[in-house]
Amino acid sequence: MAKSAARQFAIGLDYGTNSVRALIVDVRTGEEVGTAVYQYPSGDKGVLLDPKNPNLARQNPADYIEGFYRCVRAAIRSVPKSVGFAPEHVVGIGVDTTGSTPIPVDENGWPLAFQKRFANNFAAQAWLWKDHTSYAEAAEITEKARAMGLPYLAKCGGTYSSEWFWSKILHCLRTNPNVFDAAYSWVELADFIPGFLTGNLKPETIPRSICAAGHKAMYNPEWGGLPSEEFLRALDPKLVKIRQRYAPEALPADRKAGELTREVARKVGLRPGTPVAVGAFDAHMGAVGAGIKPGTLVKIIGTSTCDMMVVPMNQPLPDIPGLCGIVPHSIIPGMYGLEAGQSAVGDIFNWFVSFLAPAKYTAAGDPHAALTRDAEKLKPGESGLLALDWNNGNRTILVDPLLTGLLVGQTLLTTAPEVYRALIEATAFGALTIIKRFEEYGVTVKEVVNCGGIAEKNPFVMQIYADVCNRPMKISRSAQTCALGAAIFGAVAGGAYKDVEQAQRRMTGTKPTVFRPRKQAVAVYERLYQLYRRLHDAFGLPDYRDSLYDVMKQLIALRKEVRGES
Amino acid sequence: MAKSAARQFAIGLDYGTNSVRALIVDVRTGEEVGTAVYQYPSGDKGVLLDPKNPNLARQNPADYIEGFYRCVRAAIRSVPKSVGFAPEHVVGIGVDTTGSTPIPVDENGWPLAFQKRFANNFAAQAWLWKDHTSYAEAAEITEKARAMGLPYLAKCGGTYSSEWFWSKILHCLRTNPNVFDAAYSWVELADFIPGFLTGNLKPETIPRSICAAGHKAMYNPEWGGLPSEEFLRALDPKLVKIRQRYAPEALPADRKAGELTREVARKVGLRPGTPVAVGAFDAHMGAVGAGIKPGTLVKIIGTSTCDMMVVPMNQPLPDIPGLCGIVPHSIIPGMYGLEAGQSAVGDIFNWFVSFLAPAKYTAAGDPHAALTRDAEKLKPGESGLLALDWNNGNRTILVDPLLTGLLVGQTLLTTAPEVYRALIEATAFGALTIIKRFEEYGVTVKEVVNCGGIAEKNPFVMQIYADVCNRPMKISRSAQTCALGAAIFGAVAGGAYKDVEQAQRRMTGTKPTVFRPRKQAVAVYERLYQLYRRLHDAFGLPDYRDSLYDVMKQLIALRKEVRGES
Repeated sequence: MAKSAARQFAIGLDYGTNSVRALIVDVRTGEEVGTAVYQYPSGDKGVLLDPKNPNLARQNPADYIEGFYRCVRAAIRSVPKSVGFAPEHVVGIGVDTTGSTPIPVDENGWPLAFQKRFANNFAAQAWLWKDHTSYAEAAEITEKARAMGLPYLAKCGGTYSSEWFWSKILHCLRTNPNVFDAAYSWVELADFIPGFLTGNLKPETIPRSICAAGHKAMYNPEWGGLPSEEFLRALDPKLVKIRQRYAPEALPADRKAGELTREVARKVGLRPGTPVAVGAFDAHMGAVGAGIKPGTLVKIIGTSTCDMMVVPMNQPLPDIPGLCGIVPHSIIPGMYGLEAGQSAVGDIFNWFVSFLAPAKYTAAGDPHAALTRDAEKLKPGESGLLALDWNNGNRTILVDPLLTGLLVGQTLLTTAPEVYRALIEATAFGALTIIKRFEEYGVTVKEVVNCGGIAEKNPFVMQIYADVCNRPMKISRSAQTCALGAAIFGAVAGGAYKDVEQAQRRMTGTKPTVFRPRKQAVAVYERLYQLYRRLHDAFGLPDYRDSLYDVMKQLIALRKEVRGES
Repeated sequence: MAKSAARQFAIGLDYGTNSVRALIVDVRTGEEVGTAVYQYPSGDKGVLLDPKNPNLARQNPADYIEGFYRCVRAAIRSVPKSVGFAPEHVVGIGVDTTGSTPIPVDENGWPLAFQKRFANNFAAQAWLWKDHTSYAEAAEITEKARAMGLPYLAKCGGTYSSEWFWSKILHCLRTNPNVFDAAYSWVELADFIPGFLTGNLKPETIPRSICAAGHKAMYNPEWGGLPSEEFLRALDPKLVKIRQRYAPEALPADRKAGELTREVARKVGLRPGTPVAVGAFDAHMGAVGAGIKPGTLVKIIGTSTCDMMVVPMNQPLPDIPGLCGIVPHSIIPGMYGLEAGQSAVGDIFNWFVSFLAPAKYTAAGDPHAALTRDAEKLKPGESGLLALDWNNGNRTILVDPLLTGLLVGQTLLTTAPEVYRALIEATAFGALTIIKRFEEYGVTVKEVVNCGGIAEKNPFVMQIYADVCNRPMKISRSAQTCALGAAIFGAVAGGAYKDVEQAQRRMTGTKPTVFRPRKQAVAVYERLYQLYRRLHDAFGLPDYRDSLYDVMKQLIALRKEVRGES
């Protein structure tokens, strides 16, 4: 690290689903000295919804820009005087965002949504990661890549997702051709923000994140970057323009995207010329902020989860079916970034609270806390319930958005806390299914570090995860790992450290509290997981033919055993 | 009908799950001139529950006796002066009850529960029809009857139920031998009440209802009454005493059980010597009150359903697998009574309202009405949800208490009214499954007459039943068909009519409003029923091996189609 008398700071920007956060971090210690959050004002908590189509989820790109100004200014104001913060102490800015969240833009890189004629057009907005309108196109892309014998699916689990770049663009082309034709090109939100901050938005030259490109746009140096024009033409000739207006090389986030423009700097009170790192996805920078290294699984548990590992690029690594992605340099430069995830976790708990929790639990205070108080009194298996965690489809390992929730075992006495607990357990079973998939392909999970809102605030959930997965669950020291990861990349891109690993050693850590598996619970959950896995396979795999006749009976037998009933 | 200047009345007593009703009926017109209800004071709405065992449901026999006094007195008081009611105008009293609800009694026929030492012993109470503690014994009885090649199961669907007489007694013997040993014998509630009213409670001589005996205790004249001593001994030698202390012939309910005792008559202000009919189950007398005849399916829809048909005994009738019972004289003397049913219908809706409906629907007024207001705005298939109606097991056609509820199709936007509607639809699919079973075995359903609380009060549910079953749904004219049926038997036993059919022609009818199937809804529900049936078979039949992979996908496709989504 460069010697310097004055303190040095990096700023991390974390663009989430409902809000954007700015975090100011001491580069030498990882101390978080200032932070602020800006809730997106548009739609339902920042998400534009179509009451007629539950698959649709969009965002207003204006929220992103306003969000940058507001939360950076507020974060700077929040730094205590005693810290001695000054704009010239900022060595760099890093940016993470949700993704794949592609935005249709004009030839200058400005979102079409900013044009009056498209202001109220869903298709001209940012297509939020969790938009599932494009599942037919995802299936078409998967089929075409398979039929043409192309290798593009090997790095994304064998199935292309409706949540990803090309599915969304192709769906726009098919269903909103006027928007597609008006778009000069499309950029990921992770590219748009650094491009905007550095005044480099033109689609052909804007620095493209290898994390976004590799995990969502089938970009891989092995086959020369984006998928071939031939392949895109086979899907639709009009798609070719996207490839033609795309930088030849996508970049890792330790590289400098550019420098803060005078105008942006002035608006937030920073120094023009401050280095800005190439962007990446929130989860990947979060993994860095949580201290990811070979053997460490980082789980970011929020509305959904992202489960990440890294494998040094000098080690052999097979393709792993059902993983969201295997991309060089996408998490830590020099390593393969492996990404898995669950499409909904906190979202399922929130759904239950919003739509099905009775007044007893919602009348006063936090309904999650009230439900947890009763749910944590239950023993594993006691409710006789079992659920599948697919209310938002399955991202890993089935990679299928055309899946839904399932609950089995209800009696006439089944209570809300019992259902709530069953939903939590379902997400834990989903988490275990991902761990098992990593290990089946030789990627050993030696340690699990959790971060995100649920890991941070919900010991009840974390204990169930420890019991279900039969592994200790550690919690990242920072409560803002994504923003901290972004700040780490800001620091590295700004030259404060030689590489990400060096920065991580100084700036990351885990909390003293570790959730350890409890033997009795582990034994019950092992049995419940067998039943979960059978439902998972029966509804998730086309060739499953085993009987489910005993599933309800086994749940009842387990319930009786746990309750000590005759 | 006997000529008489003064009006003639019959009194029907209907012992339900939560309360007992008395109904005073004009014998010549069926006009209901007075009625009263008494809520059982014990337990949870009259049901004794064990928080440690969701299968247990018992009742305090004292509630039955107190209930008789209270509601008969109140019913008499409720008759308008202008009617000109007098005790000497009562030609007879009929009684129906839930069942199988066996009660352990001493040698005088008094419930053991009335002894101080047993007052708080669950096993010494009445074992309510919906008690499911005895499923292991039910399986044992089924197995033993099969192994010994005995015909007893042929008339009860091939499987003996945990809800029935011998299962409950055997479970008591196995788990509470002190109560079993203290019991001189067991009587059905349907026998106990007429026995009590007429002062004839002794187990050996109390008139046993052929309805109760035939449907629940394996009684059939074809094999000489109750199951053989050899069979009972094979289950447990101690069971033999029950057979030995049982009247040789069980009787239909058009027969007089005896006459009202002086003491009981005095307490309620009726004439001593008033004829009392032999008892029968609520549903069977309800079917009579709803006008059951060959070709007419009567559905009593309340907390559970009972689905009944009659077939003249001079017609050939095969055994029908999965039916609860086929018993001579059990509904209309001279005909086979056929009984099917769903273990929970209104109970499922009540469960949802009590445990999972959010404040929005429970804060003010009737939650069922509030949920219905939103649920009836939905189109069939629009929610993408599908449920199984097994929260209390399946009584027909699987005859399996070891089944539970199942809900599939949940997204992150699934609402409470959507789930509520899916539960209603699930019970309608269950109803259709029963109709199909009748017809598969040659018992044609020409007409469906519904009665019970839900048929009476819930047009939304009845319309869904019409749409799902693709048949008009008629509603019985009387809102109290069970009590009316009991009064009909009181009238016949008292000599006012020569037979039940003659009484029915004068005393029963249907309402002008008929729920007719709507073509579009029928088409969607036909598709949903195919999926329901696959889940039904997959979780309910041991040999089902077809893939369920497309179930979630088909629900999503149907949802899209109905919503007109791209």
